[in-house]
Amino acid sequence: SKHNEPAQAPPVVHYHMNNVTTSRNPVENSETVLILTPLARFYQEYWDSLLKLTYPHELISLGFIIPKTKEGNLAITALQKEIAKTQKKGHGKRFASITILRQDTESPLQNQGEAERHKMENQKARRAAMAKARNSLLFTTLGPTTSWVLWMDSDIIEYPPTLIQDLAAFDAPIIAPNCFQRFYNNEKKSQDIRPYDFNNWVDSPTAKEMAAKMGKDDILLEGYAEMPTYRSLMAMMYDPAQEIGTKVKLDGVGGAVLLVKAEVHRDGAMFPAFPFYHLIETEGFAKMASRLNSESFGLPNYLVYHYNE
Amino acid sequence: SKHNEPAQAPPVVHYHMNNVTTSRNPVENSETVLILTPLARFYQEYWDSLLKLTYPHELISLGFIIPKTKEGNLAITALQKEIAKTQKKGHGKRFASITILRQDTESPLQNQGEAERHKMENQKARRAAMAKARNSLLFTTLGPTTSWVLWMDSDIIEYPPTLIQDLAAFDAPIIAPNCFQRFYNNEKKSQDIRPYDFNNWVDSPTAKEMAAKMGKDDILLEGYAEMPTYRSLMAMMYDPAQEIGTKVKLDGVGGAVLLVKAEVHRDGAMFPAFPFYHLIETEGFAKMASRLNSESFGLPNYLVYHYNE
Ligand SMILES: Nc1nc2c(ncn2[C@@H]2O[C@H](COP(=O)(O)OP(=O)(O)O)[C@@H](O)[C@H]2O)c(=O)[nH]1
Ligand SMILES: Nc1nc2c(ncn2[C@@H]2O[C@H](COP(=O)(O)OP(=O)(O)O)[C@@H](O)[C@H]2O)c(=O)[nH]1
Ligand SMILES: [Mn+2]
Ligand SMILES: [Mn+2]
Repeated sequence: SKHNEPAQAPPVVHYHMNNVTTSRNPVENSETVLILTPLARFYQEYWDSLLKLTYPHELISLGFIIPKTKEGNLAITALQKEIAKTQKKGHGKRFASITILRQDTESPLQNQGEAERHKMENQKARRAAMAKARNSLLFTTLGPTTSWVLWMDSDIIEYPPTLIQDLAAFDAPIIAPNCFQRFYNNEKKSQDIRPYDFNNWVDSPTAKEMAAKMGKDDILLEGYAEMPTYRSLMAMMYDPAQEIGTKVKLDGVGGAVLLVKAEVHRDGAMFPAFPFYHLIETEGFAKMASRLNSESFGLPNYLVYHYNE
Repeated sequence: SKHNEPAQAPPVVHYHMNNVTTSRNPVENSETVLILTPLARFYQEYWDSLLKLTYPHELISLGFIIPKTKEGNLAITALQKEIAKTQKKGHGKRFASITILRQDTESPLQNQGEAERHKMENQKARRAAMAKARNSLLFTTLGPTTSWVLWMDSDIIEYPPTLIQDLAAFDAPIIAPNCFQRFYNNEKKSQDIRPYDFNNWVDSPTAKEMAAKMGKDDILLEGYAEMPTYRSLMAMMYDPAQEIGTKVKLDGVGGAVLLVKAEVHRDGAMFPAFPFYHLIETEGFAKMASRLNSESFGLPNYLVYHYNE
């Protein structure tokens, strides 16, 4: 059975899809949000940030997909410990429901340190596996009454507690904040921030030419010096002097933090595990959504933070 | 609180995906089947045939998506009347659960007589709308414990009651029986049968050449004299002298009756509402599944019957 079904559901349930709205004021309209996280590693700060979300928790369901690895075993133990606390009856921050899927397939790459998983030759297999994990999670947890899907990676550890309301207010089919990382700047001898996620981009003539000349199953990857695409990266557009509400249209998106109107997924937009217009996973998702007339947007000055290993 | 008191079940559910099997013996393994029907018109024989399925009904869930049209209103009234009878407590043929989705979008083509809806110029918009309806139904009803998805059109009125077991026994990712139609043969002056569904086919060099020369958003359609593709149609392969278990590999499938392993959908295979390798809807689905390494098969001598208007 699905997330948002009433507990004592009769064996027949009738849904009017036009009652499932996605508006600028989702709280007033009691719109439900499904937060989906592929989770290989558990970070306490991830959970703490979720708890701080000011969006009504009774309208939020959580879904996790966890790999069948030793790392996954550790992650699930830590996650369930936190869930047990939060979901206790009477806990003020209780979520509407939580689904945990344990993957049946082995992870193609066991060693997943940041350096290893970012190697270009590992990206295609890794991102295909991630795409299938995201799809499994999406296809089995999206319910008839879900209004919004918030994709949130497990290593996103800091963002404004009003994240959901802030992103929904743009009324965009798909919208991504800018994913940065805190680090200690040895030159400046102080804490600093730097761009982390390079998958949010505006297409370039160079990338289009490269794609046109590629073998049909080759993919374009972003953020690799060996393959300069000259796409405009949202990561590089951050300007603290500008409005936080500055919005740009994107052609590719990452999945670190991504708010999607559920109807975009319902129309069929998923994460291709195969090259789709030479794109894969979240970047292919943006292209597929665009083929379904749903465009993607980014907020270069609205920052969320990725864990620093 | 008392020792042995059952813990108040928290709203947390944990699924091990490798416990969700899809085997040749689905009944013995208690595998659940989700029957999905886009339903614009209700036929009593459709319901009567469902009731006769010998697969354990407690393992079967039904999902419907119904258009927001006058025709849809009539269909839903008739459907709910039958549901009310069948789902009564204690009814021997009761299904595990039933979900009815009412579409939020208008049907692009209101006049949907057989002749009108088969006109070639109407096919692209019509099949794109059908693709989105199928995806909405799929994405919102597929659960973490679903083993099989049986697509069944609402005008399929006759098939062996062992249909699910028969198809599952082939252990194929995707498998389609041959969809025929009964009619009165005026020449023979007797009841006869003829092929109905032309969407189950094996690709041809001609079709591939046509696709290669097409505009990128053009689609190939099957069963139109104006556009001869010379594909091998399963509809034409029926031979009552041969084994009922004869199996052929297919490149395109129809959705009239189609058994799909749920993991194929979970990997991301859906019904493209946009041209995908110049294919759309169910035919595009077969291609997409193939890109995800799940092949489609057909049973030319295993007949199911479409209503004759
Ligand atoms: N289910 C699942 N999740 C994974 C797997 N590998 C990584 N993840 C999660 O997927 C998200 C993105 O992966 P990550 O390694 O952080 O990617 P990166 O930050 O782009 O290098 C994170 O939430 C990970 O915890 C996997 O094999 N299976
Ligand atoms: N939800 C929904 N179902 C539809 C719509 N149009 C047709 N159907 C259903 O979709 C299936 C296929 O449509 P049908 O008109 O029979 O196609 P054909 O037999 O291939 O010409 C049938 O089960 C119809 O009842 C629609 O606009 N919305
Ligand atoms: Mn990460
Ligand atoms: Mn039909």
